[in-house]
Amino acid sequence: MVAPTLREDPSEAEVISHKLLLRGGFIRKLAAGVYTFLPLGFRVLHKVINIVREEMNRAGAQEVLMPTLLPAELWLETGRWNLYGKELFRIKDRHERDFCLGPTHEEIITDLVRNSIRSYRQLPVNLYQIQTKFRDEIRPRFGLMRAREFIMKDAYSFHVDEESLEQEYQNMYRTYGRIFERMQLNYRVVEADTGLIGGGFSQEFMVLADTGEEEIFHCSSCGYSASRESAGVGKYKVGRSQYAVGSVKEVHTPKVRTVEEVSDFLKIKPSQLIKTLIYETEQGAIAALVRGDHTLNEAKLKKVAGVEDLRLADEAVIKKVTKAPVGFAGPVGLKGIKIVADTAVPLIEDGVSGANKEDYHLMHIVYGRDYKADLVGDIRYALRSDKCPRCEEGKLEVSRGIEVGHIFKLGRKYSEKMKCTFLDENNQEHPMIMGCYGIGIGRTMQAAIEQNHDQDGIVWPVPLAPFLAAIVPVNVSEEEQKQMAEKIYQKCLEQGLEVLLDDRAERVGVKLKDMDLIGIPYKVIVGRALKEGKVEVKSRKTKEAELVELGKVVEKLRAYDGQVKTY
Amino acid sequence: MVAPTLREDPSEAEVISHKLLLRGGFIRKLAAGVYTFLPLGFRVLHKVINIVREEMNRAGAQEVLMPTLLPAELWLETGRWNLYGKELFRIKDRHERDFCLGPTHEEIITDLVRNSIRSYRQLPVNLYQIQTKFRDEIRPRFGLMRAREFIMKDAYSFHVDEESLEQEYQNMYRTYGRIFERMQLNYRVVEADTGLIGGGFSQEFMVLADTGEEEIFHCSSCGYSASRESAGVGKYKVGRSQYAVGSVKEVHTPKVRTVEEVSDFLKIKPSQLIKTLIYETEQGAIAALVRGDHTLNEAKLKKVAGVEDLRLADEAVIKKVTKAPVGFAGPVGLKGIKIVADTAVPLIEDGVSGANKEDYHLMHIVYGRDYKADLVGDIRYALRSDKCPRCEEGKLEVSRGIEVGHIFKLGRKYSEKMKCTFLDENNQEHPMIMGCYGIGIGRTMQAAIEQNHDQDGIVWPVPLAPFLAAIVPVNVSEEEQKQMAEKIYQKCLEQGLEVLLDDRAERVGVKLKDMDLIGIPYKVIVGRALKEGKVEVKSRKTKEAELVELGKVVEKLRAYDGQVKTY
Repeated sequence: MVAPTLREDPSEAEVISHKLLLRGGFIRKLAAGVYTFLPLGFRVLHKVINIVREEMNRAGAQEVLMPTLLPAELWLETGRWNLYGKELFRIKDRHERDFCLGPTHEEIITDLVRNSIRSYRQLPVNLYQIQTKFRDEIRPRFGLMRAREFIMKDAYSFHVDEESLEQEYQNMYRTYGRIFERMQLNYRVVEADTGLIGGGFSQEFMVLADTGEEEIFHCSSCGYSASRESAGVGKYKVGRSQYAVGSVKEVHTPKVRTVEEVSDFLKIKPSQLIKTLIYETEQGAIAALVRGDHTLNEAKLKKVAGVEDLRLADEAVIKKVTKAPVGFAGPVGLKGIKIVADTAVPLIEDGVSGANKEDYHLMHIVYGRDYKADLVGDIRYALRSDKCPRCEEGKLEVSRGIEVGHIFKLGRKYSEKMKCTFLDENNQEHPMIMGCYGIGIGRTMQAAIEQNHDQDGIVWPVPLAPFLAAIVPVNVSEEEQKQMAEKIYQKCLEQGLEVLLDDRAERVGVKLKDMDLIGIPYKVIVGRALKEGKVEVKSRKTKEAELVELGKVVEKLRAYDGQVKTY
Repeated sequence: MVAPTLREDPSEAEVISHKLLLRGGFIRKLAAGVYTFLPLGFRVLHKVINIVREEMNRAGAQEVLMPTLLPAELWLETGRWNLYGKELFRIKDRHERDFCLGPTHEEIITDLVRNSIRSYRQLPVNLYQIQTKFRDEIRPRFGLMRAREFIMKDAYSFHVDEESLEQEYQNMYRTYGRIFERMQLNYRVVEADTGLIGGGFSQEFMVLADTGEEEIFHCSSCGYSASRESAGVGKYKVGRSQYAVGSVKEVHTPKVRTVEEVSDFLKIKPSQLIKTLIYETEQGAIAALVRGDHTLNEAKLKKVAGVEDLRLADEAVIKKVTKAPVGFAGPVGLKGIKIVADTAVPLIEDGVSGANKEDYHLMHIVYGRDYKADLVGDIRYALRSDKCPRCEEGKLEVSRGIEVGHIFKLGRKYSEKMKCTFLDENNQEHPMIMGCYGIGIGRTMQAAIEQNHDQDGIVWPVPLAPFLAAIVPVNVSEEEQKQMAEKIYQKCLEQGLEVLLDDRAERVGVKLKDMDLIGIPYKVIVGRALKEGKVEVKSRKTKEAELVELGKVVEKLRAYDGQVKTY
C-alpha cells in the first residue's frame, strides 16, 4: 500500500482535516487546489461515492456522465458565460473555439433534455452524475473543501408542474438524509441562499463540526435552521414609549465617522446608532438603514428592495445624495432616494445618525417623528440569541458546520432561457420545471474527519474507513507472530472483510501510531498474548482493548463490520 | 429510462459502432469528439470499468486518482510540454500559470513516486487509475474511438530492476487477457510501436473486427502478431544469378518521375525499381532505398539508421545531394551521404533507378556491382504474404482490429529525466525501472459493438449488455399482459437480475425493434401464449425463441446470466 505518512504537520494545511489527510497519506497536492488521491484516499472516496450512488439509484434517479469540456455557446444562452467571471476555467481548442471546464452542468443537462424529451408522458426524470468539476477559486484552501478540481454528485430533475417538482425535491431531501445517516455523520439541514445557481428555494446539508467554516442558526423550540447568509430574524415588539426623548440635536463630531468612533465620542451605545449605507441598483440609488451593532446582509436587502443588481455607491454618488462626504449619511432630511430600514431600526428609542453634513451627527432622532423609511424589512445578518423568524418564540442558537449538500428548486430559470419545453395532453408547449441537487464528494470525506478526529489522528466512522481493521504483528522477526498475523489477515479476506496487514519491520509503537493516524476503526495486535492463544482487539474510538481468543477474532470483526465495500 | 432512440442513421457517424451508439441512445455528442453518456451508455461503460477494476485489483495493482489539471513544470522536466504540440489542451489559470489537461500521466505518477518512495523495500508497486483524458485530436471521429475527451485505465509500475519489470509486464499481459476474455471479446496481442510514450518494448491488445481501423499482421505457423507500424519482414534468400544482366544503361526519361510513370515508360515491373528517398536527420542527410512496390516505414528506418529525428529533405537538400531535381535520385554514384537499403533491395536482379541527372534513369543496375548501401535492414511496411520475421517459414496474414489496450516497458526514460530514484541494500541510488499499461474504456465499449452487431443493431456480449433481458408486454392495454410483465420484472429484480420493462404504449413491433437495436441479449415477450401460462423467451444473438412456463422464466434467465453488475 503506497501510504506515505508524515510525522510533521504540513505547513500548507490550515484546518485539521486537511492536515490529517496529508499526514495520513490520503492525498497529495499537485498544484494549488489540485490533489491526487493515494490508495487510502481513493478507498474512502469510493466508499462515499458508493453510498451516494446506491441511494440515488434507490431513489429512482438515472446515472449519466456529462463531459468536462463544455462549449461556450450553451453558457452564452443563459448568460452565465459572462456572469461566472474568473472562476470559470476557459480554454480554446486548436480551432480557436471557446470551451470551459464544467463547474456545474445546468446548461448541458438542459440541452440534453430539450433534445431528448418532448412529451409530458416522458416526465418526470431525474438524471445524475458523479464527476469532476472545475472552479478557478481565487483562494483555494482547506484541501478538498475549497479545491479548484473536485468531485461532485450533481442531479437535475425535470417536471411538468410545481407539484411534481415538490415531490422529487422531498424525495431528494429524504435521500440526502439517508446518505448522511449511512455515513454516520451528524448533520443539519438549513435554509440557504441560492447564489449563482439561482432559482427559488434551496436548502443546505451541513455536517456539524466546531471547526466548520460556516455558521448555522437554529431554533431549539421549533427546529428552524438556516445558513448565516439566509437566517431570518423574528420581529421584535414595539415596546418603546413614543417620543419620550427630547427633540433632535445637531452635534459637532469632527472627523468622527465609524460606529466605534461615534459611540465613544457621544457616549452612546452602538445599538442607538443608525448606520446609513448608500447603494446603487438598477432602479437607482437606495439608502439602507441598520443598527450600529448589526451587519447588513446584501442578499436580504436585494429581496426586500426587489432589486437584482446591488453595489455600494462610490464617493461621488454619496456626496450627491447626502450632500456630505462619506461617513456622515443619515436618514433625517434625506430626499430623492428610496429608504429601506431593517426591522430593528424603527425600534431605536433614542437614535443617533449622520447629519448629512460634514463633521456633524444628529442625536435624539426617533422613527416616525424625525424620519421614515419607504420599506421596512429584515435586511441584516441574524445574531446569536436573535428571535426565531419562524416560531417567533425561541431564540436562535449558533453552531458551526461544513456544507456537503445543496438542493435547489430551480423552477423555470434554465428551461425558459434555453427553451426546454414539453407538450402537454392538449399538445400545448410549456417550459419544464427543474430542480437540482448536489453533493460534494471530497468535501464530505473531509467533513467526516473534521467531525471525527482526536489528538492521535482520524477516527473514521466505520462505513467510510479505508479498512475495518489493521492486523499488526508486534514483532515481525518472531515467526509465530508473523505467521499468525498473516493467517488472521487471510481469513478476514476470505470473509469479505476489508483489512490491512501492517507487517512492516518497524517498532510496534510506530505501527500503532500510524494506524491511529489513518483512523482504522479496529486494531488486531498479535503479540505476547499469543502464548495464551489470544490477540488484542482495540477500538480506535473508545480506545478500549480486549483479549480475544484466536478462534473468535474473525467473528468479532464481522460483528463490528458496517463498512460500505470499496469495490 | 432516458434512452432516445433514432430511426435514421445520424449523418455525423462514419462507422457502424458509432451509428449504433447514437441510434440506440447510448451517447450524445456535445461537441466534436466530446460525448455525454446517457443512462444506457453509462451502464455499459460502468460494466467495462468494473471488469477492468476487478482484474487490476486481483493483479495486485493499487487504485489512485490523479488530477486532470496538470502543471506545465512537470511536463517541461521531460520535454513533452513541447513535443506534444497542438494535441495537448493548454490552459492558463487566473494567475497566468500554465497547465494542460492530462492526455496521459507518466510525469504525474513519476513525481508522486519520487516524493513517496525512497527504498528498494517499498518496490515494486503498480498504481492505476480510471480517469478522463484529453487530447485535442486534429480530426476527432468514430465516436468514442478517437474522441477529444475519453476515459482510460492507466497503470504505472516501478521496479528495482528489469527482471521485476518483466514479471509485472507478464502479470499485466495475463491480466489484460482475462479482462478481454471476461468481456467475451475476440482479441489478438500484437507487437507495437511505442510512439510518443516511448520506452523499449510494447504490445497492443486488438479487438478483431472486419471494420477495424488498424491492420494486424500475423503468422499462422508461429503465432507472431504485430501492428502494421511494427510488423517485421522475414529475410528472403538470395536466389539470383549474380551479374546475369548486362551493364548499366542510361536512358532518357523526360518528365518521368513516379514509380508508375517510370514502370510504364520503361516497360519494367515496379518491383525492379529502386525508390531513393532523401531524409534529413540529426546526423546529417541519409538516402533510403526501397523497392518500387514497397512503402518505407519511417519508424523502422529510425531504428536501422540509429537516428531520433527524421524528416523528408526539402528540394534544396535533394538538389545538393543528388545534383538533380526531385524525382531522379538513385544510389549509383551517390556520394557523401549514408545509404540505408531495405533487405529486399539487394535482391533486385535487374534494377532501375534515377540517374541523379534531370530526365534520366539507369537500367540494369545490380547491387554489389553498381552500388552498395552502408546499412541493409528492414525499413519497409510488411505486406500480406510477406515472410514471417520470427519463424521465417510462415507467411504473414492480415486481419483488422481496434486497439483497446497497450502495455509498455518504459525502462528508465521517465525516471532518469525526473530523478525518480531508490536506495538499494547498500544505500546506493538508482533510477527506478518503469512499465505502463493502458486500456481505452470507451474504445473497448465501442469495439465490442464493432465486433458484435447485425443488420438490426447491437448484439452485446452478455457481460457488457446494459440489461440481461427486456420484459415486453405485447399490448399494455391488456391488463393481464401488463400485470404479468410487471410481475416477472419485479421477480427478476428480486433475484438480482438486471432487466428492463418496456411498458411503453407503443406497437409491439416498435418495442421489439428498439430492444434489438440496443442489443439486449434476451427478450421476454408477454403475449398471447399467456393463455397457456407461457411467455416467449427470444435470444438476440441466435434469434431463436422458446415458449417458457411462467414459473420457469426467472430460472431460465438466471441460467443465461453472466452479467457483470452495473453497480
